[in-house]
Amino acid sequence: MTIATVAEHARVSRQTVSNVLNTPHLVREETQARVREAITALGYRANQAARQMRTGRSRLLAVRIEPTRDGINGTVLDRFLHGLTEAAAPAGYRVLLYAAADDTAEIATYDDLLAAYDLDAFVLTSTHHGDVRTSWLAERGVPFVTFGQPWGAPASHPWVDVDNAAGTAAATRRLRDTGHERIGFIGWPAGSGVGDARRSGWATTAGPACAELDRSTVDGVAEGEAAARDLLRLPEPPTALVCASDSLAVGAVAAVRDTGVAVTGFDDTPVARVLGLTSVAQPLAEAAARCVALLAGVLDGGAAPEPVLLQPSLVIRQSA
Amino acid sequence: MTIATVAEHARVSRQTVSNVLNTPHLVREETQARVREAITALGYRANQAARQMRTGRSRLLAVRIEPTRDGINGTVLDRFLHGLTEAAAPAGYRVLLYAAADDTAEIATYDDLLAAYDLDAFVLTSTHHGDVRTSWLAERGVPFVTFGQPWGAPASHPWVDVDNAAGTAAATRRLRDTGHERIGFIGWPAGSGVGDARRSGWATTAGPACAELDRSTVDGVAEGEAAARDLLRLPEPPTALVCASDSLAVGAVAAVRDTGVAVTGFDDTPVARVLGLTSVAQPLAEAAARCVALLAGVLDGGAAPEPVLLQPSLVIRQSA
Repeated sequence: MTIATVAEHARVSRQTVSNVLNTPHLVREETQARVREAITALGYRANQAARQMRTGRSRLLAVRIEPTRDGINGTVLDRFLHGLTEAAAPAGYRVLLYAAADDTAEIATYDDLLAAYDLDAFVLTSTHHGDVRTSWLAERGVPFVTFGQPWGAPASHPWVDVDNAAGTAAATRRLRDTGHERIGFIGWPAGSGVGDARRSGWATTAGPACAELDRSTVDGVAEGEAAARDLLRLPEPPTALVCASDSLAVGAVAAVRDTGVAVTGFDDTPVARVLGLTSVAQPLAEAAARCVALLAGVLDGGAAPEPVLLQPSLVIRQSA
Repeated sequence: MTIATVAEHARVSRQTVSNVLNTPHLVREETQARVREAITALGYRANQAARQMRTGRSRLLAVRIEPTRDGINGTVLDRFLHGLTEAAAPAGYRVLLYAAADDTAEIATYDDLLAAYDLDAFVLTSTHHGDVRTSWLAERGVPFVTFGQPWGAPASHPWVDVDNAAGTAAATRRLRDTGHERIGFIGWPAGSGVGDARRSGWATTAGPACAELDRSTVDGVAEGEAAARDLLRLPEPPTALVCASDSLAVGAVAAVRDTGVAVTGFDDTPVARVLGLTSVAQPLAEAAARCVALLAGVLDGGAAPEPVLLQPSLVIRQSA
């Protein structure tokens, strides 16, 4: 079974069959339908192997699926993955998944994936300071885009991110607008790009009088509860808490129960919706679509694209 | 750059390089390491296209990523996807994602995926009565496994499922053991395989005296709350509620607040953990690993494998 058989059956040229398989946007819909009918009728499977040798493209993008952890914040990257899968197909790409425990394991996986599948490009998530993954890929000339800024590194690759500082600033502003003057913050230890940005959005908006109301902890519900209890024990406790994640905020909500202290979270997860937690929402479907668009441009030989910084939005519920 | 160049650099035969790329378990670790070093040093990319033409295998499994809905129950299939990705890699396969709005769209996508990527097999989720996807694939001889029983259809393909009836039966038994005699059920309308199985586990364990305490509704938090309020208005209201999903149970918990009525959910989602909801947990990582194992056996030419029915477990928390 070859392209010639399909062409004969559909009464078109071999080039037209090839176009339907590789560049369908060049072919009239009616002709496409005829060729696809012939393909189905003949049980023809376009040989991806042969196509790939001819076009030099696998039409595959790879992305890491993250471990689940407490399942609260993890849903963010799962939603990004949904968006990526939906945006990739119309652009002619499919998404291939891989798992990796850390940066070193991830780089070992790149090696394996490039050797075995000849991927077109990678989508990297969870960028961080000293990220060795981006330099590894850049040195080998592998196309990639990151969902996350190149924290502390020169921006030598296309990236898409959400303005984290703007998110916590919007939450803090909302609390100030509703009369709060002592607004605390529960975030992650200094040194993480995302965590530092979320802290700075609160710090610049809450004002210097709130500087003593800053607590750092690793992410988690129990950790958020402990940090909130610590803040409530102060001689002048805060009347509101901005949290760097919904996990921390869920813990804070438990700690402040019946005190009237307002709480905001970050990421608008299902848990926030169920608990009535005011939270910052990231436009994840749009971020994913922008990642695909940037990569498609790079793979089509376009100029180095401008980075994309998207604005989050505040979803207001009972907790603040 | 060819396999011969790599072989020369690593001082091994071409067959050994080929084995490292295709059947690494046949090659000693030390030799594998030497060949991989040569591959990296030379920047060689094993040409998947050439390999595929030789072996007739793409080493790709495709699975649908489901739409997010309310994000509570949706996390179940995301967790299955994590398990699938992690189990596939050691078996020599990678997971390719696709999205589809319904069965018809999914079948159209099969066509496209088979034509363009020459997939080895599909993993289907969310099987249901009158599932046209399985017959489409079976007629074309495409290997696949379903996570979900072939409800109402002859079992002509390998499948893995979790015993849904055993899950609600365990929840109902727990309630009986803690003194409840009037145990209600909130589930989905009759006709869905999974929903009917979850209802039957409750019905056979709660006993005929509870038959009037059965309510059907589409899935959702608000729907669960309305159904629970309806049951609480009965002259002899239930003292406990078994729910077919965590979404329904979250609604039921809101309805029964301060009444002392016990509630159980299904799927042990992050929301259940945060709300202290007793819930039935599915062994999703194991289900995913079993799907990969069944498919790998089929693809290696093994006999038709036996179906796998896994047992769920009850995670007990404050709500029951």
